[in-house]
Amino acid sequence: MGNKFFMILLAAGLPLSVAGSLLDWPSVIMFIIYCLTIISLASFMGRATESLAIVMGPRIGGLLNATFGNAVELIISIFSLKAGLIGVVLASLTGSVLGNLLLVAGLSFFLGGTKFKRQKFNIFDARHNAGLLIFAVVVAFVIPEVFSMRMKETETMTLSIGISIILILLYLAALFFKLVTHRGVYLPNKEEGKAEEEEEEPEWSKKTAMTVLAASTVAVAYVSENLVHTFHTVGEAFGWTELFIGVIIVAIVGNAAEHTSAVLMALKNKMDVTVEIAVGSTLQVAMFVAPVLVLVSLFFPDTMPLVFSMPELIAMITAVFLLIMISNDGETNWFEGLTLIAAYIIMGIGFYLL
Amino acid sequence: MGNKFFMILLAAGLPLSVAGSLLDWPSVIMFIIYCLTIISLASFMGRATESLAIVMGPRIGGLLNATFGNAVELIISIFSLKAGLIGVVLASLTGSVLGNLLLVAGLSFFLGGTKFKRQKFNIFDARHNAGLLIFAVVVAFVIPEVFSMRMKETETMTLSIGISIILILLYLAALFFKLVTHRGVYLPNKEEGKAEEEEEEPEWSKKTAMTVLAASTVAVAYVSENLVHTFHTVGEAFGWTELFIGVIIVAIVGNAAEHTSAVLMALKNKMDVTVEIAVGSTLQVAMFVAPVLVLVSLFFPDTMPLVFSMPELIAMITAVFLLIMISNDGETNWFEGLTLIAAYIIMGIGFYLL
Amino acid sequence: MGNKFFMILLAAGLPLSVAGSLLDWPSVIMFIIYCLTIISLASFMGRATESLAIVMGPRIGGLLNATFGNAVELIISIFSLKAGLIGVVLASLTGSVLGNLLLVAGLSFFLGGTKFKRQKFNIFDARHNAGLLIFAVVVAFVIPEVFSMRMKETETMTLSIGISIILILLYLAALFFKLVTHRGVYLPNKEEGKAEEEEEEPEWSKKTAMTVLAASTVAVAYVSENLVHTFHTVGEAFGWTELFIGVIIVAIVGNAAEHTSAVLMALKNKMDVTVEIAVGSTLQVAMFVAPVLVLVSLFFPDTMPLVFSMPELIAMITAVFLLIMISNDGETNWFEGLTLIAAYIIMGIGFYLL
Repeated sequence: MGNKFFMILLAAGLPLSVAGSLLDWPSVIMFIIYCLTIISLASFMGRATESLAIVMGPRIGGLLNATFGNAVELIISIFSLKAGLIGVVLASLTGSVLGNLLLVAGLSFFLGGTKFKRQKFNIFDARHNAGLLIFAVVVAFVIPEVFSMRMKETETMTLSIGISIILILLYLAALFFKLVTHRGVYLPNKEEGKAEEEEEEPEWSKKTAMTVLAASTVAVAYVSENLVHTFHTVGEAFGWTELFIGVIIVAIVGNAAEHTSAVLMALKNKMDVTVEIAVGSTLQVAMFVAPVLVLVSLFFPDTMPLVFSMPELIAMITAVFLLIMISNDGETNWFEGLTLIAAYIIMGIGFYLL
Repeated sequence: MGNKFFMILLAAGLPLSVAGSLLDWPSVIMFIIYCLTIISLASFMGRATESLAIVMGPRIGGLLNATFGNAVELIISIFSLKAGLIGVVLASLTGSVLGNLLLVAGLSFFLGGTKFKRQKFNIFDARHNAGLLIFAVVVAFVIPEVFSMRMKETETMTLSIGISIILILLYLAALFFKLVTHRGVYLPNKEEGKAEEEEEEPEWSKKTAMTVLAASTVAVAYVSENLVHTFHTVGEAFGWTELFIGVIIVAIVGNAAEHTSAVLMALKNKMDVTVEIAVGSTLQVAMFVAPVLVLVSLFFPDTMPLVFSMPELIAMITAVFLLIMISNDGETNWFEGLTLIAAYIIMGIGFYLL
Repeated sequence: MGNKFFMILLAAGLPLSVAGSLLDWPSVIMFIIYCLTIISLASFMGRATESLAIVMGPRIGGLLNATFGNAVELIISIFSLKAGLIGVVLASLTGSVLGNLLLVAGLSFFLGGTKFKRQKFNIFDARHNAGLLIFAVVVAFVIPEVFSMRMKETETMTLSIGISIILILLYLAALFFKLVTHRGVYLPNKEEGKAEEEEEEPEWSKKTAMTVLAASTVAVAYVSENLVHTFHTVGEAFGWTELFIGVIIVAIVGNAAEHTSAVLMALKNKMDVTVEIAVGSTLQVAMFVAPVLVLVSLFFPDTMPLVFSMPELIAMITAVFLLIMISNDGETNWFEGLTLIAAYIIMGIGFYLL
């Protein structure tokens, strides 16, 4: 899949990123360099994760992937919180949810669907995820939005803290459920899965894969942080609002890792991993990254309540219902992918015009 | 099914419609004549479509039906747009969605359910339709509603145009998916279906059926247009608001064709066709008729954004969720039909009182 | 299951309740006595219902249970309406819906799930209930909320009356469907169910069970009515708002009967009865108790429209979607129960802070 291309891109991009940020090159040029570098790094993360997924099974592989993808977001968001940019943090959380549910899943289903007529994945996982998506986005994000309309600021913050703690606890309980009490309980196609897994050989050994993954993550974090500082100038140059940058641009670049590996897995018909990346990543953002940021914000001058703007909230809710409706039969095709992409474009136009 | 009754009704109604409209008879009398004529014409359209459905298979038959039913609506709406009646057009689009999802499907499920204990239909189609309903009504209609609250009028119109183009493209992609790339891929009960189809003989030949269908369509269009002009006077006479006329009356009379043939098919236990008519027709209105009208309105002095009133939007969203919840197990019974009808009556009372 | 404990609790609680209310003991003390008495009475109701469920089958048993649980609520609400406390009535209806869907079902699924890895129940009932939940809460409760924003008070009341009549008629139709036309039609695991039922012996005979049930109901009603009068003082003592008392406290104590027996059934892996109690009880509140109260309010000076406050409505809608998403695969586990409980706690915090 063009591994050499990404190798060259990285070999050029990483030094240019460092040089450019030290020498203060123009923001618009640096923006493009940073983006390409992150995307090339993401391809290495994707390959490393793929290797790990083969070695350690699709579940842990998917989990690892989501974690490494979102570590970047968590770091960027903490820097933004420190700078008091609460609106940007909420926008990039929204963008992560929309990007994963609609763009990552959409592209994977679409591109995978051009190779395979019907792609199946574990229906039990799909339902488990659907319940959590409704819990996180439709219950935990909607309640503070509606209730805060009649609340004072301190009450809204108290409610946000309470919900954040519950979200994190339930997220941990979900891991306990998946990895301990109900590990391997819900496997509809046990035999096929096993046979498929044993066949394949990982590109890298576990050690190499983990080293590549760790190094890429550090590099992505370094480049991402520089990238953020170009947004303001780039926004002015291209006529993009901060909301659009947060929701769309940060999400696309920030989730490039997920994009790449989710699509790679879809092209190999390993939809369990694809869905684990797209939806698992969304759940991690909604149930872990977002509440952690609310709690972290308590140590900064500007606290962040768990209250999105109405367009952000409605976009997330409708994205959740669309993804659930499309994925809860445990199979996908190119048209379902296209539907998700179409929804993403509609929301993109909306945020661009806001 | 009282074919002779409809024959007589038509033989009386059509000349009376022409005579009455030329001689300028009182609106309330003409209203009743027009309605009865359309209903009798609809019965012919139903029979013709039924014949075609047998000859050409349930899928194409259902598609044909939806097309012919909505051609009438498209024509009426373009005339209304030309007259600047944007509120009436949006109301009749709403009425079409509600009428098809709740009244057509409800009556079909209910009446079919009085003959058969459990009626089954293709569960894959049900899910495909569910995804598109969520896409069209919950994503594509909700986003402009919420986002436009913070937008200027020109931005709302730009968003509406963008969404309209995406809706039309996805609608065409859906046809491509259904008729080309995935034709016959999702057939759970292939054998039964085939056996059933081959057994039955069409009432009319393909040629006769198409001629009847074409002639009826032209006649329906003619009568419908006259019917529209009686609404104002009739509304005053009966104390109906324009919203109620648009949402309820236009929808019932305008979708009489779908009503008749969907119910006829349900009584023959051909639920695949019934669902194709009810839901397929809704999707055509939401993904094709509505966006085409938005684009057509650009050529008229008053442009129409894709922004419904809040009661219209909420009614459509709740109707979509109710229908999906009731139909996504791939079977129906009389009680599910009654539930849909009850929802329709509740909304009818609401629009009557608004 | 600690039957002796409840026996002692009742033997102490009932006389103390009577004595305390006659001798005018302090409200906070009486509040605790009343609550414990109701909970002990509820355990007897639970055991009686359990016996009846064995004798008369899970369906009638569940129905009986829901009826006896909600008779208490109906009586309390009518007294509240008479006193003009419309806000409290709507709050306690909301609390009943939330308590049954999230707390009763959540505790049952969670505790049952600690004993059994996967618990199954009739998937057809789950879907039937899901359709009715959407109809009642998402259609019948949302429409008056949205439409009444543009209506005069008399129109809102007319709409409320119309919807109430439709809800009651559809509720009766649902009983007719379940008990007459489609009795025993939807039984996926006929053999297992029968075998299980025949094995077990009821604790009490039908006569004894019914006597216990009747006596407990009268006693619960008596204690509940006294309990209500302590709320104001208790609210002041603990810093609880009337909304919080209505939505959370009344619901927990008022639904103690359902709680007890639903959990008991879950621990015996009879999830059909558990779901029948939790969801059936919700449907009875939404489709029977609420509309009857609207109609009864016409005979009092202050009429009650079917218009909840926005936080109440949103809480109910999100609870319905969460429960449906979790239950519509026909099986549960401890994590699904925990998710429902977490949602309940989030809403509890919200109503506490409002």
